[in-house]
Amino acid sequence: MSQDASPPAAGAATKNAMWSGRFSESTSALVERFSESVSFDQRLWKQDIAGSQAHARMLGKVGVLAAADVEAIITGLDGIAADIAAGRFAWSQALEDVHMNIEARLTERIGEAGKRLHTGRSRNDQVATDVRLYVRDAIDELVGLIDALAAGLLDLAEREADSVMPGFTHLQVAQPVTFGHHMLAWREQVLRDKARLLDARKRANILPLGSAALAGTVYPLDRHYVAEQLGFAGITENSLDAVSDRDFAIETVAACSLVMVHLSRWSEELILWSTPMFGFIALPDRYCTGSSIMPQKKNPDVPELVRGKTGRVVGDLNALLVLMKGQPLAYNRDNQEDKEPLFDALDTARDCLALYADMAPNIVVKRDNCRAAAAKGFSTATDLADYLVKKGLPFRDAHHVVGNSVGYAAKQGRDLPELSLPELQQFSPLIAEDVYAHISLDASVAARTTYGGTAPAQVRAAIARARAKT
Amino acid sequence: MSQDASPPAAGAATKNAMWSGRFSESTSALVERFSESVSFDQRLWKQDIAGSQAHARMLGKVGVLAAADVEAIITGLDGIAADIAAGRFAWSQALEDVHMNIEARLTERIGEAGKRLHTGRSRNDQVATDVRLYVRDAIDELVGLIDALAAGLLDLAEREADSVMPGFTHLQVAQPVTFGHHMLAWREQVLRDKARLLDARKRANILPLGSAALAGTVYPLDRHYVAEQLGFAGITENSLDAVSDRDFAIETVAACSLVMVHLSRWSEELILWSTPMFGFIALPDRYCTGSSIMPQKKNPDVPELVRGKTGRVVGDLNALLVLMKGQPLAYNRDNQEDKEPLFDALDTARDCLALYADMAPNIVVKRDNCRAAAAKGFSTATDLADYLVKKGLPFRDAHHVVGNSVGYAAKQGRDLPELSLPELQQFSPLIAEDVYAHISLDASVAARTTYGGTAPAQVRAAIARARAKT
Amino acid sequence: MSQDASPPAAGAATKNAMWSGRFSESTSALVERFSESVSFDQRLWKQDIAGSQAHARMLGKVGVLAAADVEAIITGLDGIAADIAAGRFAWSQALEDVHMNIEARLTERIGEAGKRLHTGRSRNDQVATDVRLYVRDAIDELVGLIDALAAGLLDLAEREADSVMPGFTHLQVAQPVTFGHHMLAWREQVLRDKARLLDARKRANILPLGSAALAGTVYPLDRHYVAEQLGFAGITENSLDAVSDRDFAIETVAACSLVMVHLSRWSEELILWSTPMFGFIALPDRYCTGSSIMPQKKNPDVPELVRGKTGRVVGDLNALLVLMKGQPLAYNRDNQEDKEPLFDALDTARDCLALYADMAPNIVVKRDNCRAAAAKGFSTATDLADYLVKKGLPFRDAHHVVGNSVGYAAKQGRDLPELSLPELQQFSPLIAEDVYAHISLDASVAARTTYGGTAPAQVRAAIARARAKT
Amino acid sequence: MSQDASPPAAGAATKNAMWSGRFSESTSALVERFSESVSFDQRLWKQDIAGSQAHARMLGKVGVLAAADVEAIITGLDGIAADIAAGRFAWSQALEDVHMNIEARLTERIGEAGKRLHTGRSRNDQVATDVRLYVRDAIDELVGLIDALAAGLLDLAEREADSVMPGFTHLQVAQPVTFGHHMLAWREQVLRDKARLLDARKRANILPLGSAALAGTVYPLDRHYVAEQLGFAGITENSLDAVSDRDFAIETVAACSLVMVHLSRWSEELILWSTPMFGFIALPDRYCTGSSIMPQKKNPDVPELVRGKTGRVVGDLNALLVLMKGQPLAYNRDNQEDKEPLFDALDTARDCLALYADMAPNIVVKRDNCRAAAAKGFSTATDLADYLVKKGLPFRDAHHVVGNSVGYAAKQGRDLPELSLPELQQFSPLIAEDVYAHISLDASVAARTTYGGTAPAQVRAAIARARAKT
Repeated sequence: MSQDASPPAAGAATKNAMWSGRFSESTSALVERFSESVSFDQRLWKQDIAGSQAHARMLGKVGVLAAADVEAIITGLDGIAADIAAGRFAWSQALEDVHMNIEARLTERIGEAGKRLHTGRSRNDQVATDVRLYVRDAIDELVGLIDALAAGLLDLAEREADSVMPGFTHLQVAQPVTFGHHMLAWREQVLRDKARLLDARKRANILPLGSAALAGTVYPLDRHYVAEQLGFAGITENSLDAVSDRDFAIETVAACSLVMVHLSRWSEELILWSTPMFGFIALPDRYCTGSSIMPQKKNPDVPELVRGKTGRVVGDLNALLVLMKGQPLAYNRDNQEDKEPLFDALDTARDCLALYADMAPNIVVKRDNCRAAAAKGFSTATDLADYLVKKGLPFRDAHHVVGNSVGYAAKQGRDLPELSLPELQQFSPLIAEDVYAHISLDASVAARTTYGGTAPAQVRAAIARARAKT
Repeated sequence: MSQDASPPAAGAATKNAMWSGRFSESTSALVERFSESVSFDQRLWKQDIAGSQAHARMLGKVGVLAAADVEAIITGLDGIAADIAAGRFAWSQALEDVHMNIEARLTERIGEAGKRLHTGRSRNDQVATDVRLYVRDAIDELVGLIDALAAGLLDLAEREADSVMPGFTHLQVAQPVTFGHHMLAWREQVLRDKARLLDARKRANILPLGSAALAGTVYPLDRHYVAEQLGFAGITENSLDAVSDRDFAIETVAACSLVMVHLSRWSEELILWSTPMFGFIALPDRYCTGSSIMPQKKNPDVPELVRGKTGRVVGDLNALLVLMKGQPLAYNRDNQEDKEPLFDALDTARDCLALYADMAPNIVVKRDNCRAAAAKGFSTATDLADYLVKKGLPFRDAHHVVGNSVGYAAKQGRDLPELSLPELQQFSPLIAEDVYAHISLDASVAARTTYGGTAPAQVRAAIARARAKT
Repeated sequence: MSQDASPPAAGAATKNAMWSGRFSESTSALVERFSESVSFDQRLWKQDIAGSQAHARMLGKVGVLAAADVEAIITGLDGIAADIAAGRFAWSQALEDVHMNIEARLTERIGEAGKRLHTGRSRNDQVATDVRLYVRDAIDELVGLIDALAAGLLDLAEREADSVMPGFTHLQVAQPVTFGHHMLAWREQVLRDKARLLDARKRANILPLGSAALAGTVYPLDRHYVAEQLGFAGITENSLDAVSDRDFAIETVAACSLVMVHLSRWSEELILWSTPMFGFIALPDRYCTGSSIMPQKKNPDVPELVRGKTGRVVGDLNALLVLMKGQPLAYNRDNQEDKEPLFDALDTARDCLALYADMAPNIVVKRDNCRAAAAKGFSTATDLADYLVKKGLPFRDAHHVVGNSVGYAAKQGRDLPELSLPELQQFSPLIAEDVYAHISLDASVAARTTYGGTAPAQVRAAIARARAKT
Repeated sequence: MSQDASPPAAGAATKNAMWSGRFSESTSALVERFSESVSFDQRLWKQDIAGSQAHARMLGKVGVLAAADVEAIITGLDGIAADIAAGRFAWSQALEDVHMNIEARLTERIGEAGKRLHTGRSRNDQVATDVRLYVRDAIDELVGLIDALAAGLLDLAEREADSVMPGFTHLQVAQPVTFGHHMLAWREQVLRDKARLLDARKRANILPLGSAALAGTVYPLDRHYVAEQLGFAGITENSLDAVSDRDFAIETVAACSLVMVHLSRWSEELILWSTPMFGFIALPDRYCTGSSIMPQKKNPDVPELVRGKTGRVVGDLNALLVLMKGQPLAYNRDNQEDKEPLFDALDTARDCLALYADMAPNIVVKRDNCRAAAAKGFSTATDLADYLVKKGLPFRDAHHVVGNSVGYAAKQGRDLPELSLPELQQFSPLIAEDVYAHISLDASVAARTTYGGTAPAQVRAAIARARAKT
């Protein structure tokens, strides 16, 4: 997050003899660099210009600015926007932030009228407006990526609706499930992320402009008109709160943290499934790299990086919570530190979602390996228990019978369906020939027909419900 | 969060000679203590019993359990509930968790039927159900406390709608505001918290039961019927996701973190306002303590503790995010660690909200001190600038004129309204006799009539809007 | 961390009508419960009593207390210690904390002299002294456990010094290593933890007593004498700092966080190695449990719980950092919140280290499975590259040749040692019959003889060095 | 921390129709950007080149490289270093990282010999070496800044050794202290930071090179010779550990977090002391800014930003802990994410320390305001209690008498020294005329002569001790 990664160059001396040997930058240069924000808040330029244009129009509407001034401001800002978009705008660190850079350039371009733009507002409500607009747009981008990702998972789930793999608990083989079912589990996670992001958007999409420095202003601002122009759903209720509130940033980064927690879990699974020990899938080459020393390696770099990046987003969330803790009202300069963690979390979530949206549907499932793995580890033991329950045994007693059977089979080095009927009947007289129709992999999977269960029929029903909704 | 705070007692030896001198507990006792959860999950007993009763009724409805068994289970669980409520239930660490404790007791009470209760479910979906029910109830309690707190702030804001105090930015006097306005800013913060908690509630209030261990079950469960009995708004869509999802806990704790960030900010202000340096308020005695060494002290302990407790809730949020990072599906034992941070965050937020709900309306505002402080620090300088803008000067030029006037007044040791007209006119010929009607404290405050501004009229309008809504 | 886990009972009403429906505890009871610390600081009783006895002796030595008073205090406190140890001491919440509980009881026992004990000290320096003593003892316990654990790993490493297993990078098979080598890697991690804990101990082991509330006292205290009695290595230099410093707690918890990060990594590996997909090890039964629904499961619960508990310790560290951020000097009540995260981190690290110290040496290595896994995945490809480099090819070119060979072998479904000489020679004429002596598993491992490398000879040398040091 | 701050431009389409409307960057470009590290690890160039030169010299020494090759490599790398220092080096994202960028350029410059440089090493041990060298240098810079800062505080403490100000607990006036004493408290905090950083340096300053990818190598490397050339104090003991260990980064960032916690506390105090409510100090203008709307403001921006930046460093620490949690050995790509939080924490601590080192000695103390504030709030009440204890009253009884006196004085609106003797004697007959010599501000301060106490004589003694040590 550092605005200047390079360590200070050696050589130049400062006036302060005491530590001159230690630090070569002059203090005033260091203060300027330390306190500027334009290096990272310049990405708010679109929002800043849109906000200023809306503010100017409103000042015109309520009679604070003359029509000609409004016109000059709008046109001037359009010109600046074109310059920035074209890479022709020279950002100045001495002008501190995106707001002063743009306003100063505006006054250079259009003179006197430029100096009137800041009437009835403050950088405190201006930056709050810019960031809220930015967050709103960023959430829309994330939601779009989640939609794409969820659609891709649906396709993948459909393709693999019948592919049997081991379902794990404690990373031990528990019961067979289908790969499609597993993909639908992933999908549920990001659908919750989407819902959470949209809830955060509701609270971000409220206009703070008009709160001025902290107390409101003496000008007859029409805040609803500004909100309307900028697409805000409402206006903030209290000026002190409006300039000091960063809840929307924290809530959004918290939602991004959960996105990353989910993707880290998928990454863990993809990494596991890619080891030769599992061998369940192959990832497309472009998401993997080789090794500088071991030529045989195909490393799942993208999942590993995504898993690693979880830490930075959790760190961003922490940074924001620590930042705001204990701050008195209203604006404090500390708040300038809100932007880098926010931008970092949004960028990271965006890139990771985009990569998964592209990668997920292209996962190659090695069905034979998946099925072979599911056949190990007595994965249908629960089915034997359920069989016994249906024959009238209380569940806890059935559990006990199956425990004995598994113990026997394990000693024999065979799985349950490989035991003969007499062998099975040692453990319960309720077991009959029809048992084999219940304890095969396919039978096990097919039988789990509860709503949300792993039976291919249920998986297909879930896919149909999902398609019907979108 | 430790389940056993006492360091192991000295004396007893273990078999493992290697570290026997170091650790006196036998390994098996340590494993039991390390892995049990009943010491902290026993608080889920109401939810666990309600869930089991609903499950049993449903098993009866779909024909898996006989009516008599259902009846026995319901009655047996009612008896256990009565025992627990009366403090007559002996929790056993050896039985690990709340679920096994209750089920074991049930079977003792009612025999065979008790062993049938666990049909078609697993502790994985059972605990997820219990915790979701608990979170739902806890959110309702928090929301109730927020409502009470918000109502108290509204009363306080009304009482102090005209009380002028300094509005601070950078903890420097910026512009005068009213105490009532400040209280409404606080209120906005907790109203957002309420909205966030209710959004989290939506996602928590979905039934996972019926997902069994991870794959669904072979029994014809009627999950909607269970949901209906327990007041859930819906049922989970995917069994693998349902048993491994802890989003609802994380989201709730994230919402609690923001509650605490807000209360920490209020606490900081109350602590500041209570120092003799500020002297803006007095807190009721019962929220303060004395000193063991300095008899004159009246310390704002409750706000200090609330500020301090912010750390623990942020820590709880972190604990949960770290916990879930990188976990493969479906259930892993790690997840047992979700409860203590969750409970801790909910308890802490509850207690802090309850205390503020009681304390806030009883804050005594020392109005004279507040007003005197607002009169320092050139708090109406902005009003002079606005006055000049209204006379036609561009804002940026007006800002410059005021800067000069303030510099002059500061050297004189006087505030702006104390300068004579000729003195003021040195800085701009636009200044006339009517300037004094704009730069008094009351004029300054009264003029900030933007929607959400600090003018007493606006504060009263905001209060009226708020009352109309509730 | 909550001092009272139970949600407030429904029913009882409070005076505050506004939220009486919501919260049933009376405010004063809530304030008392909210602000007490005796429920968690009572575990400091030994330290508190030792500190008070040292203080009293010193007050006697410098003439502030009469010899008879000192005698009475010492004896009285010994009696209280005996009561507490025997479980006969009734802690009172109304007396707030461990200090007041013990002092009040002392005065009950010995009268007037008890009231003189607090001369020249404050709870601020008293609690700082108690916690430092506690941390010192707790670190000693952790260090002892690490020593035991490190010794166990050394034994295990010796037993498995020749056992070949796959070394992973990116969880892909990279090169063969030995199990013993892997265990020595684990050992290095905890040896660093030990060194860090001992460094933290140096900074904790400094006496703050004598700083009084914040400014020192008017009594002629002999602080060095107190330090000597309590085994402190020095005394704090500044009274304001001494009562407000919690660095030692944070540094200790940071060291515990790293302990947990290490154990979480080992846990991840044990969990992986225990899946049937890997099948590298078996854990002793007493660290595992079965399933309530799947009778065949043997779940590695202890490693999972240890991995999960990493989150809580990271959360504790966060809680402490958030707690201290931005606190002005000197003591604030916030600081009371330092104890629970500290105790929780120390307890958790202690239990996890103890369990690993017992479990690690008892890990059963399935050597055949390990070796078979190492034979997959072209794990000796690097050896072929090194062979070519020794024959004169630049490393980067050798890397390229091996990449081609591996690609060919992969298509054939064979590993490198299974290719015929002519097949290998397709890729480089430098390859000769002697190549097979370099690309077997055992040859590969044996050749890595760099200091710290995986060759069994190196592993044994490392073990010998380690044994020589301890 | 984002390597590319700009949101993807709108417009361009990707092949993946599904989300083409959402994300305009082509996947392969995104993967390249996502996985590259050269944008942030290029700052390791000096360390990378020094490490490569040492490695090459060692390969020459042990006969793996010909002397001419070694010579060519050294010279070639010197040329590259000159290019980079002069800003003439074009970093390539396609070459991923600093290592490949430099090695590729080397081979361009010197041909064949360049390809031999990577013999016997891997990027895994190479990057670990680079980062350890970087951390070592960065710690040295931080320690130098702390020395300068500590020296400045010593000067300031000496200047203000007699300046009386209120000592606060709970932000209530507790007892008078001296400003010099307060500055010495600050100094203690950073001296601990220095000690912690130097302890972290010990553990960082160990050479991992020679561990190769994970298992050591087949070449007869002389690791001690490499360590000697690079100034490392030792070599790592285990190759698997060496390539996966990031403890040194975490420990360093933890130490930086404590630096920031300390500076955040000073910042809080400077901000408080700068409000007109306190008015204890003035900060040099160059550390403050004005307001865009309130011309009278002088805001303590640097302390506010420092306080705000505490969050980012705590966030960095979290990011690293989350990153490493649960990672199996040996190297995983996740680890690439270690650098940005590490660099950010080091940069932030460096800048903040540098600014405080310059600013602290230039703080202007408003001695009259400080003294006047100390005279409020019954700050010498403890002295009255101590007076009574010296007259024979038990401390707890004296405390009670003083409580009554303060209550009486508070009602009268006077401070204790302003009460008449008969008034004081109402509360205890032990009070005599000599009491006034104990309860003045100067008497109170002068009497606190315990080692580390606030008496000017003690402050001067502490300064003398400190000067004697440095």
